[in-house]
Amino acid sequence: MKSSQFVIIGLGRFGSSIAKELIALGHEVLGIDSCEERVDEMSPILTHSVVADSTDEEVLRSLGVRNFDCGVVSIGDDIQSSILTAILLKDLGVKQVVAKAMSDLHGRVLEKLGVDRVVYPERDMGIRVAHQLASPNLLDYIELSKDYTIAELVVPKCLAGISLHKLNPRARFGCSIVAIHKPQGMIIAPAAEDVLHERDVMIIIGTNAQIEDFEQTVIK
Amino acid sequence: MKSSQFVIIGLGRFGSSIAKELIALGHEVLGIDSCEERVDEMSPILTHSVVADSTDEEVLRSLGVRNFDCGVVSIGDDIQSSILTAILLKDLGVKQVVAKAMSDLHGRVLEKLGVDRVVYPERDMGIRVAHQLASPNLLDYIELSKDYTIAELVVPKCLAGISLHKLNPRARFGCSIVAIHKPQGMIIAPAAEDVLHERDVMIIIGTNAQIEDFEQTVIK
Amino acid sequence: MKSSQFVIIGLGRFGSSIAKELIALGHEVLGIDSCEERVDEMSPILTHSVVADSTDEEVLRSLGVRNFDCGVVSIGDDIQSSILTAILLKDLGVKQVVAKAMSDLHGRVLEKLGVDRVVYPERDMGIRVAHQLASPNLLDYIELSKDYTIAELVVPKCLAGISLHKLNPRARFGCSIVAIHKPQGMIIAPAAEDVLHERDVMIIIGTNAQIEDFEQTVIK
Amino acid sequence: MKSSQFVIIGLGRFGSSIAKELIALGHEVLGIDSCEERVDEMSPILTHSVVADSTDEEVLRSLGVRNFDCGVVSIGDDIQSSILTAILLKDLGVKQVVAKAMSDLHGRVLEKLGVDRVVYPERDMGIRVAHQLASPNLLDYIELSKDYTIAELVVPKCLAGISLHKLNPRARFGCSIVAIHKPQGMIIAPAAEDVLHERDVMIIIGTNAQIEDFEQTVIK
Amino acid sequence: MKSSQFVIIGLGRFGSSIAKELIALGHEVLGIDSCEERVDEMSPILTHSVVADSTDEEVLRSLGVRNFDCGVVSIGDDIQSSILTAILLKDLGVKQVVAKAMSDLHGRVLEKLGVDRVVYPERDMGIRVAHQLASPNLLDYIELSKDYTIAELVVPKCLAGISLHKLNPRARFGCSIVAIHKPQGMIIAPAAEDVLHERDVMIIIGTNAQIEDFEQTVIK
Amino acid sequence: MKSSQFVIIGLGRFGSSIAKELIALGHEVLGIDSCEERVDEMSPILTHSVVADSTDEEVLRSLGVRNFDCGVVSIGDDIQSSILTAILLKDLGVKQVVAKAMSDLHGRVLEKLGVDRVVYPERDMGIRVAHQLASPNLLDYIELSKDYTIAELVVPKCLAGISLHKLNPRARFGCSIVAIHKPQGMIIAPAAEDVLHERDVMIIIGTNAQIEDFEQTVIK
Amino acid sequence: MKSSQFVIIGLGRFGSSIAKELIALGHEVLGIDSCEERVDEMSPILTHSVVADSTDEEVLRSLGVRNFDCGVVSIGDDIQSSILTAILLKDLGVKQVVAKAMSDLHGRVLEKLGVDRVVYPERDMGIRVAHQLASPNLLDYIELSKDYTIAELVVPKCLAGISLHKLNPRARFGCSIVAIHKPQGMIIAPAAEDVLHERDVMIIIGTNAQIEDFEQTVIK
Amino acid sequence: MKSSQFVIIGLGRFGSSIAKELIALGHEVLGIDSCEERVDEMSPILTHSVVADSTDEEVLRSLGVRNFDCGVVSIGDDIQSSILTAILLKDLGVKQVVAKAMSDLHGRVLEKLGVDRVVYPERDMGIRVAHQLASPNLLDYIELSKDYTIAELVVPKCLAGISLHKLNPRARFGCSIVAIHKPQGMIIAPAAEDVLHERDVMIIIGTNAQIEDFEQTVIK
Repeated sequence: MKSSQFVIIGLGRFGSSIAKELIALGHEVLGIDSCEERVDEMSPILTHSVVADSTDEEVLRSLGVRNFDCGVVSIGDDIQSSILTAILLKDLGVKQVVAKAMSDLHGRVLEKLGVDRVVYPERDMGIRVAHQLASPNLLDYIELSKDYTIAELVVPKCLAGISLHKLNPRARFGCSIVAIHKPQGMIIAPAAEDVLHERDVMIIIGTNAQIEDFEQTVIK
Repeated sequence: MKSSQFVIIGLGRFGSSIAKELIALGHEVLGIDSCEERVDEMSPILTHSVVADSTDEEVLRSLGVRNFDCGVVSIGDDIQSSILTAILLKDLGVKQVVAKAMSDLHGRVLEKLGVDRVVYPERDMGIRVAHQLASPNLLDYIELSKDYTIAELVVPKCLAGISLHKLNPRARFGCSIVAIHKPQGMIIAPAAEDVLHERDVMIIIGTNAQIEDFEQTVIK
Repeated sequence: MKSSQFVIIGLGRFGSSIAKELIALGHEVLGIDSCEERVDEMSPILTHSVVADSTDEEVLRSLGVRNFDCGVVSIGDDIQSSILTAILLKDLGVKQVVAKAMSDLHGRVLEKLGVDRVVYPERDMGIRVAHQLASPNLLDYIELSKDYTIAELVVPKCLAGISLHKLNPRARFGCSIVAIHKPQGMIIAPAAEDVLHERDVMIIIGTNAQIEDFEQTVIK
Repeated sequence: MKSSQFVIIGLGRFGSSIAKELIALGHEVLGIDSCEERVDEMSPILTHSVVADSTDEEVLRSLGVRNFDCGVVSIGDDIQSSILTAILLKDLGVKQVVAKAMSDLHGRVLEKLGVDRVVYPERDMGIRVAHQLASPNLLDYIELSKDYTIAELVVPKCLAGISLHKLNPRARFGCSIVAIHKPQGMIIAPAAEDVLHERDVMIIIGTNAQIEDFEQTVIK
Repeated sequence: MKSSQFVIIGLGRFGSSIAKELIALGHEVLGIDSCEERVDEMSPILTHSVVADSTDEEVLRSLGVRNFDCGVVSIGDDIQSSILTAILLKDLGVKQVVAKAMSDLHGRVLEKLGVDRVVYPERDMGIRVAHQLASPNLLDYIELSKDYTIAELVVPKCLAGISLHKLNPRARFGCSIVAIHKPQGMIIAPAAEDVLHERDVMIIIGTNAQIEDFEQTVIK
Repeated sequence: MKSSQFVIIGLGRFGSSIAKELIALGHEVLGIDSCEERVDEMSPILTHSVVADSTDEEVLRSLGVRNFDCGVVSIGDDIQSSILTAILLKDLGVKQVVAKAMSDLHGRVLEKLGVDRVVYPERDMGIRVAHQLASPNLLDYIELSKDYTIAELVVPKCLAGISLHKLNPRARFGCSIVAIHKPQGMIIAPAAEDVLHERDVMIIIGTNAQIEDFEQTVIK
Repeated sequence: MKSSQFVIIGLGRFGSSIAKELIALGHEVLGIDSCEERVDEMSPILTHSVVADSTDEEVLRSLGVRNFDCGVVSIGDDIQSSILTAILLKDLGVKQVVAKAMSDLHGRVLEKLGVDRVVYPERDMGIRVAHQLASPNLLDYIELSKDYTIAELVVPKCLAGISLHKLNPRARFGCSIVAIHKPQGMIIAPAAEDVLHERDVMIIIGTNAQIEDFEQTVIK
Repeated sequence: MKSSQFVIIGLGRFGSSIAKELIALGHEVLGIDSCEERVDEMSPILTHSVVADSTDEEVLRSLGVRNFDCGVVSIGDDIQSSILTAILLKDLGVKQVVAKAMSDLHGRVLEKLGVDRVVYPERDMGIRVAHQLASPNLLDYIELSKDYTIAELVVPKCLAGISLHKLNPRARFGCSIVAIHKPQGMIIAPAAEDVLHERDVMIIIGTNAQIEDFEQTVIK
């Protein structure tokens, strides 16, 4: 994988998590924050880190921000700084600008300014956690479209010892089990004779209605 | 799906997102926050909402918190209130207690107090965003285990018009395409003769190394 | 003159001055400020006045802001509120939105958001005062273009008793005296035989260079 | 033009705008502010700049303030400092003292202390903006006296192609067009046969009533 | 004595002391302070008392301040309010305006604004206390002029039993004892044969040098 | 006069006034304040000056405070520091301790702690100013006892040209004029034929009732 | 036991603990605090409770504080209020006044003001905890005098099964075991044949040196 | 006695009292506080002292905290820091951790985290003081169990001259006098013929009811 250059502005919980993971994935990261303490904490980990006011155009210019592949505005709670930093990154010509929004209105401003991607980490994570709380067997899921979801479900006790042939989700609910994760390994495209055991994990794909129907009927 | 009763303590961005989604999923939610403004904003949406100090045992008792199926401590930035609220929920006998941690140390305290699940929304969301930034074709993914991942990848131009037979990911990289999401619908367990088009979305399963190998070799 | 409807958001020194003058000119003005004291002070003067948070979309909607001919965002020193209010006015469909900018960067954001006119009252007033300080005879002026200016100059003692024929600004400097304001009245398009007296005021039009040349040569 | 020496006390938006323009006009400017950040920002531009408490007589004395041609008290929002600084400048013998007033009462104090000119930038700019908002064709204007105004008006579509002879403002309204600013140049004292085109700019002089009458009748 | 009407603005330690004493002397006093607590404390004592912002012209007008014989501006530590209140009292036509100054510069502003008498209570009291500390026998004194003082001195042990004849201050020092305050009563213009006793109090008049000479020579 | 050593703790308006006057009277003064700015301002004037926390026993000990003749606690508005400093000065053995009280209760505490003299500068000065406001002819006065006062009165127009013989205050009111201060000098123990002139100053001694009677009857 | 009347001023952790225990012991308690929240919390427990400023003499008088048997000044961290309250209680004639001191200096002031007993709860408790930390077998102790202590010691494993005859503390160390607390009951003045068991608790009396000697020699 | 190593975190009144007493008992103490002033005050007394943030794991690790025999968390009023510090001490493996609790809820958290001993100094000291206030003859006491107490009582006047034989507490009340502290020395296990004198101190052991009965009957 080709290494890219990221500038992360705002090293709070969200920004520092992005920064650490990008470093772990082999990329170069310049971290900027106005708070010295946060920069000190991240400096042993990042490629470069600077205490700076990201709303000062000259500062960003002198840091060569324009040459970065991607700029992430992950400023904690200061909407004004977030907006001013975002417009500077766009005006300086950063190819891709990603920014965290604190509210819908903040997000609308960022989009109007031409930010390429607006993220709402706490809102999105809240939705994800809500689904997991609502479906105790649900470990994680991806919304593929408005209708389709792929879900990772723990096999409950009541399904233990049942073969896919007998369970027959395709025929009964319309959804498909595309993989089963067992302690001994992953079975991809499992066969009809494969048997589920408690604590196995099924990867199931289907419409939201199909998966919900499946969960409510067979998982109890 | 049976409707459950949730009490969400802390109606900031994370807590209110959980609360709204649970309501959307058909559950009952009692929202508690010490800030009147936040409660006012959520009260038209939630089943019940109260301005209250969640570190006051009498208050929680009088709200009947012990009878709820699940308590979520999503207090914004006040570690002390988060900890004191969490121990009260456990002591009052709430069946499942979920709490948001602001730091690793905070998380360790919550676990020692018997909190059933500790979540780090900004850290986790940061990791997810980092992966998406690092792999431009990656829309979303689930880590199935330390090794296995299921990834949702946009089909790039360079793969347009190529059949699965020709691409042959199983043989070349060891990973499998378990579904293709096309404008006209979802193809589950696609056949060898199915052809990819630009902007289709592939659902691919495999080890992290296999998927990375696949991305780097065929997606350019 | 047809009466128009203005909504002025921010009733500080600048906003309240606009509001009072528009009322004096016969228009209807709704004044909005988050500070009760300011609203109380202006309410006897304005058509309507409201204490409200102008960054709350619902509030603006319920005040019927969309039906106003023009919205003025004259918020004192809170850049965030200024930006969020401006995007709301635009999104609600206010025909013309004028906003005060606290800095160049703030002004750039406002323009990107589609604000129709961005004003910098203290910067512009500073420039005007600087010109008056630099040219003691200059009362006021309009920059007609990059090159041309119309200036209002006090007739100094050294020009007292001199006729326009003798002064002959057109021939000597290229600029024209289009009017002379005398205690007894205004002489528009003055004739060659008109004579200047000390404390008369000349209205002179020409290029910046011509007027400067005129001032330096004949006014001493 | 002879270069003069100005001391500007208070380098906020208004003061720094005056200072920059005076420098651009070729004068020497000493800038004083109690805020180090503001002084740092202006120091590359100004002749001299100092962080100092302008209410300390010894400080002003040691800066040689008495020898300046003009002192401008443009202190932002601290009425007390503004007043104390103004009396010191007067007592030290600065020839001309100009001060910004935050309110009428503040202005009355400054006048009683002998300040030569009191300015109200936000109030005056508010009035100017209000006139422009009220008359969409009005670009700028000078109030020559209580009655007379000189106005810079955009020629609207409805007047395109009309000659001054036909428009005849002198006869119909009593006001005179003293110049027409066209893309190809400025016509001073235009002739009866000169024809207006859309987007031309007319410089018109007359009483307020005449000009308003003109605007309402012919500009629609 | 004819009763006069006083308005005291600022009911801190100094203002409330003036107010109480004027009431005790039989005058009418209106007390004004922006602090409710202070007004509440004084209201049982004063003729009238009001919580009000004394820098608001309308407020002072509606309280009928213009009709008072004398206005005292005894505002604690807010120089701005003191100045703005003083100019309002003068402009409203209060016959005599007395104001407390916090510093020399403040005092100069008050004088320029036409305040009839500027007092420096802590400075003056400090001077008085310093004299008493420096001369242990000095109870109190009045500076009659630059040179002359009248002093109230305790008769020390070393002068006990001595007649004025023997002490002869007129001849020896030039100063005169104009009265002796004895436990049994006041002796005005004491005779040569009057004898001093310890703890008697002498009222002595003379130049500063004479009195100092007297103190140093005969009081030991 | 023998020079004494004073330590003044608290260099606000009252303390610095005492300190300056003692220096002017030829004494040695050590000034102590916790505020660096105040100490800097006084250091050129005082014998010694120190920034120190006067409630720290070790600090006072190391400054050799015990050897001073007199300690003055003139701490501005911090009752706690005033009390703690006062007890330390007494415990360290300072011979005479004088302290400023902010309120009666504060004064009672200081007296209980053994402070030798408690002063109320603003209360006392307020009383003095009240008397001067109440009696426009009164310049200054000393209360000799509960009953007797010595007053310095301006001779009003109505007494101009009148001899003491005619005025005869002793016979008519019981009070005596002990001196007359005229532009040409001081007349001590004036004779019956001495004549008063407008603007002369009489020094009059008598009971309060006598003096008031005198003022009301003859001064109009 | 006769019930007494206590007034507790300051209902923080220390004051409220005293108040609750006195109520439990059957006494009447009036609780006073300036903080409404604290008073609300204690009001269901105490005889009476009031939100009041205890430094206001009128307030204390109107509460009838003078009739109480004992006043406790347990004000948290405000030394000034503690001192002013203490002098008021003494002056009002409360029979016994107890006050908590925050520091030695504070304690000295309280004693000078005549407070009957000054307590240092955190200092004293710190000493007690230090002793328990230093001697792991020590449960609690009373210092009877400078030399003598009575200590409550857990019997360690190494003394299990040993009779007092064999242990013979009187002869070997000079100290006496006056009681043994066993699960089955208290043995007062135990006999020589009584045998110690692990986890019994010995009550031992002696000089500090004797008890330390005993602990170090026989307890290991 | 073997010297142990203690780390005291939080050097307020309680923590510094423990620290000083442990030093006096011959132990080694490392003191940690985030406040430089407090550390400076204690550093001459303690073995080591450090300004540090005790919630930073790396800091505690680098100070070698894990090797200490006992850690005391005596943090003043910051519950969050107290909790985070406590879990770090436990996780680092400190053998014994003692922590001060500000409230019951705080104490419950500390216990759940495995803190070995939770102390409530102000609550406990309040109880002790309450008992002493309620029983004027009670000097101190130890609660041996729920029922049994050992009390140190001053012999009142009414018991002066009475022998133990006559008093006979064992027979009349069930409680025993185990020692009498007389000016001339301690009588342990006093004999029946020993006589009490006023101001002697009796050490009495018995059930709470017996001792209360004794006090009420014989002490009056």
